[in-house]
Amino acid sequence: MQKCAKSWGVLLAKSVNPSAPRGHLRHKSGVVWKLPSGLRGGSASLTTRGLRTSAAAASSRRIERILPRHDDFAERHIGPGEREKRDMLDTLGLESIDQLIENTVPASIRLQRSLKMDDPICENEVLEALQKIASENKVWRSYIGMGYYNCSVPPPIQRNLLENAGWVTQYTPYQPEVSQGRLESLLNYQTMICDITGMPVANASLLDEGTAAAEAMQLCHRQNKRRTFYIDPRCHPQTIAVVQTRAKYERQNAWCCLTCWTLQGFLFVLVQALACCATDLLALCVLRPPGEFGVDIALGSSQRFGVPLCYGGPHAAFFAVRDNLKMVLQCFRDAAGKEVYRLALQTREQHIRRDKATSNICTAQALLANMAAMYALYHGPQGLKHIAERTHNAALILAEGLKRAGHRLHSEIFYDTLKIDCSVAAKDILERATQRQINLRIYQEGVVSLRLFESKLPSLIFCVFHLLIAFVLPCQPITWREFGNIHPFVPLDQAEGYQKLFRQLERDLCEVTGYDKISFQPNSGAQGEYAGLAAIKAYLNSKGESSRSVEKHKASLAAMMITYPSTFGVFEENIGDVCELIHQNGGQVYLDGANMNAQVGLCRPGDYGSDVSHLNLHKTFCIPHGGGGPGMGPIGVKAHLAPFLPSHPVVAMQSVNSSRSLGTISAAPWGSSAILPISWTYIKMMGSRGLTHATEVAILNANYMAKRLEGHYKVLFRGRKGFVAHEFILDVRPFKKTANIEAVDVAKRLQDYGFHAPTMSWPVAGTLMIEPTESEDKAEMDRFCDALLGIRQEIAEIEEGRMDSRINPLKMAPHSLACISSSNWDRPYSREYAAFPLPFIRPETKFWPTISRIDDIYGDQHLVCTCPPMEAYESPYEEKIASS
Amino acid sequence: MQKCAKSWGVLLAKSVNPSAPRGHLRHKSGVVWKLPSGLRGGSASLTTRGLRTSAAAASSRRIERILPRHDDFAERHIGPGEREKRDMLDTLGLESIDQLIENTVPASIRLQRSLKMDDPICENEVLEALQKIASENKVWRSYIGMGYYNCSVPPPIQRNLLENAGWVTQYTPYQPEVSQGRLESLLNYQTMICDITGMPVANASLLDEGTAAAEAMQLCHRQNKRRTFYIDPRCHPQTIAVVQTRAKYERQNAWCCLTCWTLQGFLFVLVQALACCATDLLALCVLRPPGEFGVDIALGSSQRFGVPLCYGGPHAAFFAVRDNLKMVLQCFRDAAGKEVYRLALQTREQHIRRDKATSNICTAQALLANMAAMYALYHGPQGLKHIAERTHNAALILAEGLKRAGHRLHSEIFYDTLKIDCSVAAKDILERATQRQINLRIYQEGVVSLRLFESKLPSLIFCVFHLLIAFVLPCQPITWREFGNIHPFVPLDQAEGYQKLFRQLERDLCEVTGYDKISFQPNSGAQGEYAGLAAIKAYLNSKGESSRSVEKHKASLAAMMITYPSTFGVFEENIGDVCELIHQNGGQVYLDGANMNAQVGLCRPGDYGSDVSHLNLHKTFCIPHGGGGPGMGPIGVKAHLAPFLPSHPVVAMQSVNSSRSLGTISAAPWGSSAILPISWTYIKMMGSRGLTHATEVAILNANYMAKRLEGHYKVLFRGRKGFVAHEFILDVRPFKKTANIEAVDVAKRLQDYGFHAPTMSWPVAGTLMIEPTESEDKAEMDRFCDALLGIRQEIAEIEEGRMDSRINPLKMAPHSLACISSSNWDRPYSREYAAFPLPFIRPETKFWPTISRIDDIYGDQHLVCTCPPMEAYESPYEEKIASS
Repeated sequence: MQKCAKSWGVLLAKSVNPSAPRGHLRHKSGVVWKLPSGLRGGSASLTTRGLRTSAAAASSRRIERILPRHDDFAERHIGPGEREKRDMLDTLGLESIDQLIENTVPASIRLQRSLKMDDPICENEVLEALQKIASENKVWRSYIGMGYYNCSVPPPIQRNLLENAGWVTQYTPYQPEVSQGRLESLLNYQTMICDITGMPVANASLLDEGTAAAEAMQLCHRQNKRRTFYIDPRCHPQTIAVVQTRAKYERQNAWCCLTCWTLQGFLFVLVQALACCATDLLALCVLRPPGEFGVDIALGSSQRFGVPLCYGGPHAAFFAVRDNLKMVLQCFRDAAGKEVYRLALQTREQHIRRDKATSNICTAQALLANMAAMYALYHGPQGLKHIAERTHNAALILAEGLKRAGHRLHSEIFYDTLKIDCSVAAKDILERATQRQINLRIYQEGVVSLRLFESKLPSLIFCVFHLLIAFVLPCQPITWREFGNIHPFVPLDQAEGYQKLFRQLERDLCEVTGYDKISFQPNSGAQGEYAGLAAIKAYLNSKGESSRSVEKHKASLAAMMITYPSTFGVFEENIGDVCELIHQNGGQVYLDGANMNAQVGLCRPGDYGSDVSHLNLHKTFCIPHGGGGPGMGPIGVKAHLAPFLPSHPVVAMQSVNSSRSLGTISAAPWGSSAILPISWTYIKMMGSRGLTHATEVAILNANYMAKRLEGHYKVLFRGRKGFVAHEFILDVRPFKKTANIEAVDVAKRLQDYGFHAPTMSWPVAGTLMIEPTESEDKAEMDRFCDALLGIRQEIAEIEEGRMDSRINPLKMAPHSLACISSSNWDRPYSREYAAFPLPFIRPETKFWPTISRIDDIYGDQHLVCTCPPMEAYESPYEEKIASS
Repeated sequence: MQKCAKSWGVLLAKSVNPSAPRGHLRHKSGVVWKLPSGLRGGSASLTTRGLRTSAAAASSRRIERILPRHDDFAERHIGPGEREKRDMLDTLGLESIDQLIENTVPASIRLQRSLKMDDPICENEVLEALQKIASENKVWRSYIGMGYYNCSVPPPIQRNLLENAGWVTQYTPYQPEVSQGRLESLLNYQTMICDITGMPVANASLLDEGTAAAEAMQLCHRQNKRRTFYIDPRCHPQTIAVVQTRAKYERQNAWCCLTCWTLQGFLFVLVQALACCATDLLALCVLRPPGEFGVDIALGSSQRFGVPLCYGGPHAAFFAVRDNLKMVLQCFRDAAGKEVYRLALQTREQHIRRDKATSNICTAQALLANMAAMYALYHGPQGLKHIAERTHNAALILAEGLKRAGHRLHSEIFYDTLKIDCSVAAKDILERATQRQINLRIYQEGVVSLRLFESKLPSLIFCVFHLLIAFVLPCQPITWREFGNIHPFVPLDQAEGYQKLFRQLERDLCEVTGYDKISFQPNSGAQGEYAGLAAIKAYLNSKGESSRSVEKHKASLAAMMITYPSTFGVFEENIGDVCELIHQNGGQVYLDGANMNAQVGLCRPGDYGSDVSHLNLHKTFCIPHGGGGPGMGPIGVKAHLAPFLPSHPVVAMQSVNSSRSLGTISAAPWGSSAILPISWTYIKMMGSRGLTHATEVAILNANYMAKRLEGHYKVLFRGRKGFVAHEFILDVRPFKKTANIEAVDVAKRLQDYGFHAPTMSWPVAGTLMIEPTESEDKAEMDRFCDALLGIRQEIAEIEEGRMDSRINPLKMAPHSLACISSSNWDRPYSREYAAFPLPFIRPETKFWPTISRIDDIYGDQHLVCTCPPMEAYESPYEEKIASS
């Protein structure tokens, strides 16, 4: 085994990519193949709670101690191994990680005990436990509708997009040179929305139909400054609730108006001087599009296009406007003479106008928009039309059958939804429906509604026929996909699995944050901020202090919002005092949870004085980025704010007092429920020790990188004892004068070195903010530092006059493969210098930018939001082939 | 929708790769994004059989006719759409596909009706039906052992290898320039086997432990020509049976010997003048390796290293030998000065010494060997040792507990298996085991055996304790992964789902082939040939005609083996007459099923006179290639051969009369059971019409390509009416004289055009055989033809003296990225000419060879079978980093 031990140690550093020999996936997120440096044991329990009696559990734990498990998730998840950590501490001149933390996190706020968590379990075991929880969900057939529909997810899309790390784990496509495929797909989404709605401009994409309607209200207000917004009461109740809640905090009035015009019976309409229309993409495949009715804004959910029900989310909403409302989100442009894609309105810190931000512009549900776009491509226009007609025909058949059986329809005008006055008592229908495991929407005594959907139409019709005609056949419920196929408005006893998972996750998040209660309704970080501030406002109103609304003056002080540790990368020492000061002056403290990953296990906002925080689960608790969504922004609050947490107009959520509630934030009661199992799983596998160690290593990694770079770049801001927190800022502004080099040049040049650029110009314009997180190993951080040192050397070449200040590898970066392999090479540096600047960047494993640098100015001047006309796709070559 | 319809038509041609904008996956197998050219309807049934009463089914079918489904799998699976088929028929000067088939398949053998199949169902529905079947399998805990163990599959390996098309769908790595990653992983496997067994040479890999033992016997025989082979009766019964069966047909004698030496109590030994040792990789992680005991051959299954039970397969077996037995399978060599990988003994038609082939050398279980190799990398040597120790310690604890409870162990020397004389009646134990859903191996009254395994040890021990100590606790069975977690020797009533699937698949395969009975035991095509010929031999023996053993002379004529349509790509007209002639002379007809994909739905071997065929399910019925395995080679036979089909020594297989059976072919009763759901699914989704149409389009595609190429290359062999079957041969031999160009040069140059080479030098040396299959669309075939026409033009440049005959793009092909991007370019043609020879090959989407052309001669002279020593991996660069 000696030789084996040696060779494997090296082999482990290699790639699992089947077509490239080594390291191909290194700088992309995904699997880590890493040799655990030592054996762990003792602490892990092999089975989850509740599987056996406590006596048995004790016996099992005794056996477990004798037979320690080998595998430990935390050790695989956290990047550096024991030896690497030792090396990094040496570099920092420290003895231990404890010493690092003592020098970084103020003693006054340190948690003096371990987090109380279940013992960690390994990946196979956690999946088993999760499956057991899932099995407590009951997957009935849901004809409830109300904006959520069963649909067939084409398996190629499920497998190649929803289950493909290349789509799921990607960051938002800020660097277009390495994101062309995803940008193209988002443009397809926008083109599809424009085609189907008949509107000229669409975005990609919003959180859900409710928040899209609220955005529509705000856009109308910005456009015409009016303060009244009428809503058709036949809108989905959650849409009305979200709009009303938003209006309350935005000081608009949202009114319900009983009589207003409708389109074709199935559209509901938000009317103002501007007309907004919430609509259904599938119905529009066979009906006249709203764009032909003079509508100003068309919006709705695209869930029905191939995204599972997911107990309410994640789904993408679309938003399309008339030209004069200008909501362009995507653009199409030219770089090095080529047609390429770029984001137009970018949606994160780089581009937030901080003081003016009012909308949920962070999480864009990009992954779900891409799924819907692929669904449309998969079926094509004819296929979509066919599905739409088939759904409508099924409703017609069902309507005829119901009428013949003596029931009465509320309306003869319908697309896929039948509202029925039943000839039998509602109680009887409900009983039969329960027998057959079917969910209907029950309005009142004797009135039910049925919404048809694409999949399994004949058997559905068949089922419903017999439900209402009282002929019972054996029915086989679908007993799997227990997370995906649950409608968000099913009775709670059908979602016991979800509810149990929410409870467990809430318990753990409360332990992590020091709060007393969690709301999972906000489905993005920005929604979380909105919900948290709304909860404070509702709380103050309830105390008769509604005049408190700003942050500056004592008398009117409502709340202070603070990011901790700060985005400057520092744990300020006096955070506790600041919180106390705010409280003394009658205000509340909102602590931005964006940097919670620097605190987990070390200190808790709820302990040192904060009243409320949102948690970016996709950052601190491992939900993948999805190329720009989904994310989740649940909020944690202290007990006094708990009564004011979000409620829901359709689902009575436990322990929320809806009369005091702040209102409704998202369309679904628990936001993007279906991604919560990811965070649940992560916490169960890491356990207290693993979570805390992840925080420690995030801080260690940042300090190690700062140390390696500090002699070459200026590191802005440090804590009192000279250490940074979990992130730090590199100042590249001086190079503008010395070498004509700006942050963007460094960012683009990093692509040539195989790296995606870190955050640019936030929080300080012209700088780079680096946050390695806990999951990068030392070798990868060393490569990244080497790349930055290599770039610094290139800058020096310019500074010292050995390289031209306009034509140099930084200004010309990134170098695409087309550029490098061209016969024409007239640059004053070599191809190798351009493409393989360090030995670890090798032709066979390099991740290449597919295009040359984006021309931002051209892009800003040439915004487009749909695909170009067909002629743009015609290729003289393909024509030649066709005629050959 | 007008604009939409247009743009989407084009967008569909683009890629789904998230990082590259267009066409990146085009020439790799996998998803097809294709717009159905028209709507289908009418024929599909939405639910599978047995879901409802027949009256209900009739109602549902009526509704189905009114509401035709949009989606049709066959239309997505088969490459060319309606317009493309029309264009291709025009090219061929034909009116219809019917006319093509009339001109290709002899009328005398045409099937005059449709295949009797279930109506096709779509992908979502078939998954649901399959899940229902799976739910009929009972996943008990199996302590049976006998060569099959529960183990934990690391989720990163399951997700990134077993569920990753990049590993699963790949063809055997014959073209090393585009297969370096997979070759490296196979070398890791060999290195691991050598390290763990202590043997110097190992291969990657064999079908199962039983066939590996049979191979060992044959290797011993080839080595020393002796005819007696002793087997320890304590070997696994299926291993003994497979060896005995092989000996019977190879004219060796395999004897069971009751007393022979054993090693450490757990190894069993096959003794001859040469010593063979079947062993267990996990045990060897803590025991002295057989290489230190003077063993000549060590073999066994590597299933236990992270591959699920799978009801018997697919798994990989290892085979390691002393140096003097020389079974080298992998080599390590130098091309353009670089260390790269290549297959040494290639295992398909290119390299079969046809008349001398005796072993199952086609399917190599490469995918499963790669999984085992990754499992070893994932845990590392220390991790494996820990798992091995933990397993043994669990056995020690259990042994102690059992002894204290009054049971007696058969032996105090054990690794992970306890054979127990129980103090209670076997009946009682069995009853308790059934209550707790546990499978044991029961030897005889009062004697049971337990085999421990890696996963969930404490709870297992806990369970078994209470099983044998009669204290009952609630036990939660795992009710999912119903295909993966079934031991092959469980009672049949625990595998009802598998049995139902086998019956349905057998029914459909009988309908397709015209045979009466199918055996699923052969787990590769070559195993199928062996099983089919053995069945004929057993049949002849039973008739007292054991002297029939050859193919040449009437009196001794046993069988004729024929490939149809022939590998020359022709449907011979007189196949029926030939079969009749053989039968008249007392022989049997074995029809090679390799080309069954040219016959499905058009003609049936069982109808025109064949007695037996094997079916390459991975070719005709869509099992992915796995980069060289798994495959499946079930055989179909006429009724008179049915009693002689394979049997099994442990599992009593229904409808096989074991006294007349040919014996045992593979270790598992139904071969690689777990991949059969793939073929089952394919057939259910295609239906009769889809399967037949796939055959027609395979023939259409081949004829279209032959037509496009015929003016430029000579097409060898055609049918009587001038058409080819489903494949054809291009003659490139003349270019050797005219331009010094050989088939290999064309094959390597195709890589530059983005294509994997077709089969070379088979069945005619120096030619290329092209088989497009039904699933390529016209655009892809046109690109492939364009590539071959481009290459023909390049050859013409040499012929006409405009290009050097030694330094030209063909001789220098393939061109790696390293070569193209180098500053040093001294060739008499441009970089663009080398790397982007046609407009459809673009830098951003090209699939690059990672290395330059393999130097075959150097490779043949420098064979290696394990990774090089550690020094080879040391990088001066990495050292520099460490010290910086």
